[in-house]
Amino acid sequence: MKFPSKTVRFDGRFVMHRNGYLESPTIAYETWGELNGKGDNAVIIFTGLSPSAHAASTPGNPSAGWWEDMIGSGLPLDSDRFFVICINSLGSCFGSTGPASINPETGNRYRLAFPTLSLEDVAEGGFEVIRQLGIEKVHTTIGCSMGGMSALAFCIRHPQLGGRLLSISSAARALPFSIAIRSLQREMIVKDPKWAGGNYDVADPPVVGQRLARKLGMMTYRSPREWEYRFGRERISLEMHSDEMFFGDFAVESYLETHANRFTGQFDANCYLYLSRASDLFDLAEHGGSLKAGFSKLALDSAMVIGVETDLLFPIRQQQELADGLSVVVSDVEFVPLDCIKGHDSFLVDMDAFRPVISRFFR
Amino acid sequence: MKFPSKTVRFDGRFVMHRNGYLESPTIAYETWGELNGKGDNAVIIFTGLSPSAHAASTPGNPSAGWWEDMIGSGLPLDSDRFFVICINSLGSCFGSTGPASINPETGNRYRLAFPTLSLEDVAEGGFEVIRQLGIEKVHTTIGCSMGGMSALAFCIRHPQLGGRLLSISSAARALPFSIAIRSLQREMIVKDPKWAGGNYDVADPPVVGQRLARKLGMMTYRSPREWEYRFGRERISLEMHSDEMFFGDFAVESYLETHANRFTGQFDANCYLYLSRASDLFDLAEHGGSLKAGFSKLALDSAMVIGVETDLLFPIRQQQELADGLSVVVSDVEFVPLDCIKGHDSFLVDMDAFRPVISRFFR
Repeated sequence: MKFPSKTVRFDGRFVMHRNGYLESPTIAYETWGELNGKGDNAVIIFTGLSPSAHAASTPGNPSAGWWEDMIGSGLPLDSDRFFVICINSLGSCFGSTGPASINPETGNRYRLAFPTLSLEDVAEGGFEVIRQLGIEKVHTTIGCSMGGMSALAFCIRHPQLGGRLLSISSAARALPFSIAIRSLQREMIVKDPKWAGGNYDVADPPVVGQRLARKLGMMTYRSPREWEYRFGRERISLEMHSDEMFFGDFAVESYLETHANRFTGQFDANCYLYLSRASDLFDLAEHGGSLKAGFSKLALDSAMVIGVETDLLFPIRQQQELADGLSVVVSDVEFVPLDCIKGHDSFLVDMDAFRPVISRFFR
Repeated sequence: MKFPSKTVRFDGRFVMHRNGYLESPTIAYETWGELNGKGDNAVIIFTGLSPSAHAASTPGNPSAGWWEDMIGSGLPLDSDRFFVICINSLGSCFGSTGPASINPETGNRYRLAFPTLSLEDVAEGGFEVIRQLGIEKVHTTIGCSMGGMSALAFCIRHPQLGGRLLSISSAARALPFSIAIRSLQREMIVKDPKWAGGNYDVADPPVVGQRLARKLGMMTYRSPREWEYRFGRERISLEMHSDEMFFGDFAVESYLETHANRFTGQFDANCYLYLSRASDLFDLAEHGGSLKAGFSKLALDSAMVIGVETDLLFPIRQQQELADGLSVVVSDVEFVPLDCIKGHDSFLVDMDAFRPVISRFFR
């Protein structure tokens, strides 16, 4: 797999938020549009757990990105107006330094020698990119899902950048149900004998555990209501038993199987474990002792919080909490609850609902 | 482990609903109270997937049952008035014949040679018990969770028994989200190398897969709202990493671990797979071609449908569907949506909410 993203290299020791350091790590990113003369049109995007920086096609990589319909000439994130920058999270495996990368100090992959990852580190990776690009003011910081927490960390730690915040299907911190889901996903992977304490053969990774984790992920990324409309009790075969005795003939089971197959081999298992745990650990309240204290560190012109009623992983009440907390310190905050049925993933798949709202925010 | 439940033996071939047969299977049950002279005070209970027939303590087994606070002298299911009978589902491992039982025709455990299990078979197991007890009319049929579907099958196939139906946190059929959850739980077990195609050593069963499945179960048996109040982001240790690197220090993770430990060794893996799949397969609409046709086969005096707003596994709208369907054919139907925060398991743990409602139904 190629990672044609652009990269910056941090010069020297990158001190991690919780403990340890990385020696001269790389941060991958992609861009669309150009920085204007005033240097005030940069839009920085922090992603969810699994996407790369390839949010939309580029001349260097014409394949469709994960937000292809959102970024480009004439689209809501209009590359004719904005210099859009998408960051590949530190700890990921799409160009940025992560557990699958070679540790320059040892010549071996980091694996579990990678220090504890925090979303504050992901935020600093993004900051290093814009610093090296010479950007001193940000027009808008966008964070989707886990990226919304990285975006909060970014804005709290660099209030001088100013600008606006667009938080999409995210939260100020994880609640126990989401922690439980992610914890179980991690356990599925580490209990796969092939994980081997993190020292798996990269050509023969813990695919069984990763597939199980992906299926549980899909259940929390979509919604029961969507599946009810979409699949009902449809069968993919009239036979009672297909190739396996205990599953496989309901359409929803086939759907999950297809998604698990598609994801297999895409994401390094250890990187997944680190990013997943980082999502659990983030807590805005750690920045000052309370959520209120955390919010008070922000210096934003305006903010929009978009959430989806059917989101199981980042429930709508967490969007409300975010909007309420922002309202205390940001003069112009809009909360947009959307009645999409596709759950957490709606921002990726329900463009008809999201495009007009995001267009309005950038108008 | 002892199974001091009473048993009946079916005489000859018990023909299964979908295919195959069992030779002279056993059905375990327990009772409280006595059948009255008119023989019209029998209350029959069909259980959820994992409980035994030991719903409450008995002289023969004084340990607390799974509905200890509901059944007994002066309790809502008053053993001074009713002859209460709880059925251990066919296919289970607490006294009734199931995949872990010895097949009398081969002298070996059935394992995967057990025929496809349907909740209609569970219902017939219950019918055999009351037939052998000489009961010709039923006062009330109760079904909790999966047992609610068994109870529907029982009432549809034996309308001459008449009586009333009490459906608790159940459904007329499974929807795709619940199917997906159970399918993934089954996959966790069959992907455990120790499952060995169902031929595991009973002294060394696929505990890793069973524990993962149990944890996912707990997530769907309780509710995000309960866990938010109960655990929040509480840690059980101030250390960042406890014994494992990627999990363990959030209170909710410790809670799931405790529950998984408690369940380990309690339930046979193959029995679980069969009962889980049977829950997916049940569809009232198969009894006549539509839900309406299925409901029309009932001959009940009255019915009560209780559900919980926070139930993820048997959502409240399925309780509404059940109540609406029953209303067409049963003159007296009461739908009781309860605002419990403990999700699907509320009927087991939120006695303050359930006891008054069930008391009222039996008054």
